[in-house]
Amino acid sequence: MNREKINELKQWMLKKEIDLAYISSPQSIAYFTGYESEPHERVLALFISLEQEPFLFTPALEVEAAKKSPWQADVVGYLDTQDPWDIIKKEILKRYGNPRELALEKNALSLERFELLSKLLNQTTFSNNLTPIIQKMQLIKTPDEIKGLIAAGKWADVAFEIGFSAVKNGKTEQEIVAEIEYQLKRQGVKQMSFDTMVLAGPNAADPHGEPGGKVIQKNELVLFDLGVVWNGYCSDATRIIAYHKPTELQKEIHQIVLEAQLAAQEAVKPGVTASQLDQIARKIIKQAGYGTFFNHRLGHGIGTSVHEFPSIVTGNDLVLEEGMCFSIEPGIYLPGQVGVRIEDCVYVTKDGCKPFTHTPKELLIVRD
Amino acid sequence: MNREKINELKQWMLKKEIDLAYISSPQSIAYFTGYESEPHERVLALFISLEQEPFLFTPALEVEAAKKSPWQADVVGYLDTQDPWDIIKKEILKRYGNPRELALEKNALSLERFELLSKLLNQTTFSNNLTPIIQKMQLIKTPDEIKGLIAAGKWADVAFEIGFSAVKNGKTEQEIVAEIEYQLKRQGVKQMSFDTMVLAGPNAADPHGEPGGKVIQKNELVLFDLGVVWNGYCSDATRIIAYHKPTELQKEIHQIVLEAQLAAQEAVKPGVTASQLDQIARKIIKQAGYGTFFNHRLGHGIGTSVHEFPSIVTGNDLVLEEGMCFSIEPGIYLPGQVGVRIEDCVYVTKDGCKPFTHTPKELLIVRD
Repeated sequence: MNREKINELKQWMLKKEIDLAYISSPQSIAYFTGYESEPHERVLALFISLEQEPFLFTPALEVEAAKKSPWQADVVGYLDTQDPWDIIKKEILKRYGNPRELALEKNALSLERFELLSKLLNQTTFSNNLTPIIQKMQLIKTPDEIKGLIAAGKWADVAFEIGFSAVKNGKTEQEIVAEIEYQLKRQGVKQMSFDTMVLAGPNAADPHGEPGGKVIQKNELVLFDLGVVWNGYCSDATRIIAYHKPTELQKEIHQIVLEAQLAAQEAVKPGVTASQLDQIARKIIKQAGYGTFFNHRLGHGIGTSVHEFPSIVTGNDLVLEEGMCFSIEPGIYLPGQVGVRIEDCVYVTKDGCKPFTHTPKELLIVRD
Repeated sequence: MNREKINELKQWMLKKEIDLAYISSPQSIAYFTGYESEPHERVLALFISLEQEPFLFTPALEVEAAKKSPWQADVVGYLDTQDPWDIIKKEILKRYGNPRELALEKNALSLERFELLSKLLNQTTFSNNLTPIIQKMQLIKTPDEIKGLIAAGKWADVAFEIGFSAVKNGKTEQEIVAEIEYQLKRQGVKQMSFDTMVLAGPNAADPHGEPGGKVIQKNELVLFDLGVVWNGYCSDATRIIAYHKPTELQKEIHQIVLEAQLAAQEAVKPGVTASQLDQIARKIIKQAGYGTFFNHRLGHGIGTSVHEFPSIVTGNDLVLEEGMCFSIEPGIYLPGQVGVRIEDCVYVTKDGCKPFTHTPKELLIVRD
């Protein structure tokens, strides 16, 4: 239970004259309560009152787990045979009376649920959006959160080591994925932060490719994009290896992406904007003649979600501050030929940044 | 590209006087287009016009993949540096003029995005919800879809075999999970339909427990709840094994749950209601004295999502029809002691049902 962050939210509610806040995304609920859960289509909700005690609302079969979690206030459950909205309405009225203004997490509440809620509480207004304030709170990580991200990053380094060793004659992309996840799970990792990507040769030229039955060939590059969830925090990193001798083109592309990645990473410090970082990397790739083949933003925030704020993209004038955490991941994708992306997630320090992953970024050559 | 289903949707639009439909959930988009993608926080959208050609809207880096997919109409992309809503507005106006009524998938569109959209298209009304009609269309599976689910079910049977063989002296829950997923991935399975659950002894008494470092002990029951995604279709099944000799209580609980599961499964046929099925299983567990320990619904629909409609729960008077697919999964959970759930997903036939999984449901005793 993160009392400090709940109080920070209440300060904002006070200023905005909001009497009740309804947190609806499982990630935000985990952030405030310490209770992690994926409710699927069931209803999981956290109600934070400006003046009274909050309560957590969960499916009945989650109540025990929620009570054992770090959350230290009321937990209300509902059975599958009950209408959750009916119970929510009754609980709100009983505890807080008719709310004047109920702030919603508007990026994490479906229009369908909003329409239900606004019918139930027809004397209430819903003008305020919690999404920007929660994103802003999560933007600057506390030292404890950074420790969490460092720990998750270490596992990504372990994963690269396993993956690089698994590259052998006759192996498919998918077999290498299986090996990485198997070894990690045996060591206690419960979850990857996204489907592990191992893409060989031309397959790596699709930035969102999917590993399959392709056997890794000599003189191909192999792209590893992976991350784990560790105690609720995510890692995300990308490395490239060459299986046997790389071609001149492969070496050239790798070198340009590496320069772009390092230049952007070295430029990170408080005061620089997200847009500037994107521009630094993009300029290097453009000058080398591959500008049109870098067709995505430079990076995304990371924390308890693998993609969160800030977005590191041209046009985002957000000024970086100490404690922000994000990826730096330029790439060049020549369709049908070769794809290279190099990625570290970093946290902004007083005068620069530090990466969460430490696997060398130079082109590693693997033979067998 | 599922022209038949697109036409079915258009029939409904015609009746409701809707000129444009905006499909926003990745699952529904995959259902209509054959293009599977997880856009994370980026925007993926499908616009189906009553009278003109539809278009798919994706992040720029997905455009190539979308064009190669079974989707056979326009694909419009946007770069991370562009405002997707701006482009969407322009595309809609250019192609269709100002829509009179734009129907939305209200369970899969955030309030935030709705507020943006309704500002952009301020001459348009948004009274119709696509969610119920899409859910209804997906409720009855075509023979091809059932083939997809049968194939996914076979992999769940393979997974049980791997998992049961992995139960050995000194093994932890998490090691068995790792073994199952490793062997499946090596055989070409790309994705599990949810985090594989292997829970031993009292851990199984939490219906949403999470596998950990617990070593499996002799005379404990071990619960396996798992499923895979195969060509876009999901499986989901639960089995129990006894590691060495089960206790009398374990045997009793297992027997009651098995009877409840079989009774409900045998009762499935067109004309029976979802509520009645839930009641049949619940009555058996109640009469055995464990009613309060069966604290969730009997089942959920399954298809391209692991949880979809129909909900098999008391109070749902939906009448079963041929082609509906759902789980039947009663359970008894005695906190701190023992947990048993037995689950098959089935499809409704002309005069009964058939399960997608065939691993025996009797209590299997595993020794080493």
